[in-house]
Amino acid sequence: MKVAPEIKEDVERLVVDSAMFIDRDELDRWMECFDEQARYVVMPRDNRILGYPVGLIHCENKARIEDRIVCLRHANKYNPHFDRHILSPSRIDTVEAGVASVETNFMVVQTNKSGESRLFCAGVYEDKIRVGSGPARFLERTVLLDTFSVPTMLATPI
Amino acid sequence: MKVAPEIKEDVERLVVDSAMFIDRDELDRWMECFDEQARYVVMPRDNRILGYPVGLIHCENKARIEDRIVCLRHANKYNPHFDRHILSPSRIDTVEAGVASVETNFMVVQTNKSGESRLFCAGVYEDKIRVGSGPARFLERTVLLDTFSVPTMLATPI
Amino acid sequence: MKVAPEIKEDVERLVVDSAMFIDRDELDRWMECFDEQARYVVMPRDNRILGYPVGLIHCENKARIEDRIVCLRHANKYNPHFDRHILSPSRIDTVEAGVASVETNFMVVQTNKSGESRLFCAGVYEDKIRVGSGPARFLERTVLLDTFSVPTMLATPI
Repeated sequence: MKVAPEIKEDVERLVVDSAMFIDRDELDRWMECFDEQARYVVMPRDNRILGYPVGLIHCENKARIEDRIVCLRHANKYNPHFDRHILSPSRIDTVEAGVASVETNFMVVQTNKSGESRLFCAGVYEDKIRVGSGPARFLERTVLLDTFSVPTMLATPI
Repeated sequence: MKVAPEIKEDVERLVVDSAMFIDRDELDRWMECFDEQARYVVMPRDNRILGYPVGLIHCENKARIEDRIVCLRHANKYNPHFDRHILSPSRIDTVEAGVASVETNFMVVQTNKSGESRLFCAGVYEDKIRVGSGPARFLERTVLLDTFSVPTMLATPI
Repeated sequence: MKVAPEIKEDVERLVVDSAMFIDRDELDRWMECFDEQARYVVMPRDNRILGYPVGLIHCENKARIEDRIVCLRHANKYNPHFDRHILSPSRIDTVEAGVASVETNFMVVQTNKSGESRLFCAGVYEDKIRVGSGPARFLERTVLLDTFSVPTMLATPI
């Protein structure tokens, strides 16, 4: 399907911006990427396949996302690190009634205070994005995580 | 050189789609990305440099690619894992007579059943893509692999 | 902010090209990506945060970059490897007076002569790019490196 260039640009921008805000530890700006009623779910890929729709993180609206961020900031004191998101190009599946369905493969490289980097996790963002009326915003973001064995997984948003 | 926006979009879409189809284990859809007469070659980078054009995989047309997929599905039973392709933006070198020459750096993160992810391989896709008449299709894909020491290399298409 | 499509394309192309030229060991072409007066700085992320603007590499113009390349080529004889850059999509922050400010997350996968690949480093390119008059060129590239513990870090440009 063909996507209008300005919608494509808005979608790609939101996805890239939101990743960069985490990398810069600008979590307030990250949260601004979400609509007030946005859902944010982090789920192991395995659960999807096995039919258990249970998330590691399950926030039903933006207020819950904010609560979560406060907790994460606290946890982070004991697990100081840098994140770096590497994103594959986004795929826009459909745009219907002002909502774009978008998938973006990603990986996160994490670097500790000694400057050692490692592959932290990989997965796919499955997003519903409001487009065409004001700035693009996430209505729903499901982070489908391939990696689920990492004990420090939840110390930052992904 | 300047590339028409609709050709650029078709090319980028085919490259991203084909990677996603592998990640989702939708190998039938992956095969549909290839023209009937398409060549699919996987070759270590070293061989290219040393002048040995010998591939790890060498399929001269789509029927051969399908044969290969049947074998891979069988092999996969004993090496269960998830793939996740992370693609760099594509470079369109030329578009001549309805054929685009395109390069795309990539890496694959593989995750085992315990949820542990590792860098599996990296390399570059060197593609000849039919554009401008019907849906874009691979006429030729050479996967130039940097990584060639991995024993399980051939358990999935790349 | 909205960026003119042709500027966006020129910027994205320069960033992808310059990475590919390193990967192919075409360092002469890599250098052509820089303006005569271009600055090229490689700096650990930590230094930025701590307020030490000291670079691992600090080249004040293109002649200095060329000097550096000669040294690197020599060092490389004793550390033979392949690089593979994986780039996230570029973010164009501003375009003012013919200069685009651009950020691009990246990682480098390095492969040794035995065909073993590893995550070498990750970080962000912070670029000032001349656009709109002739081919796009780097006026300034700051490579902000997350990874700084790698002893062989300086054996190639990044």
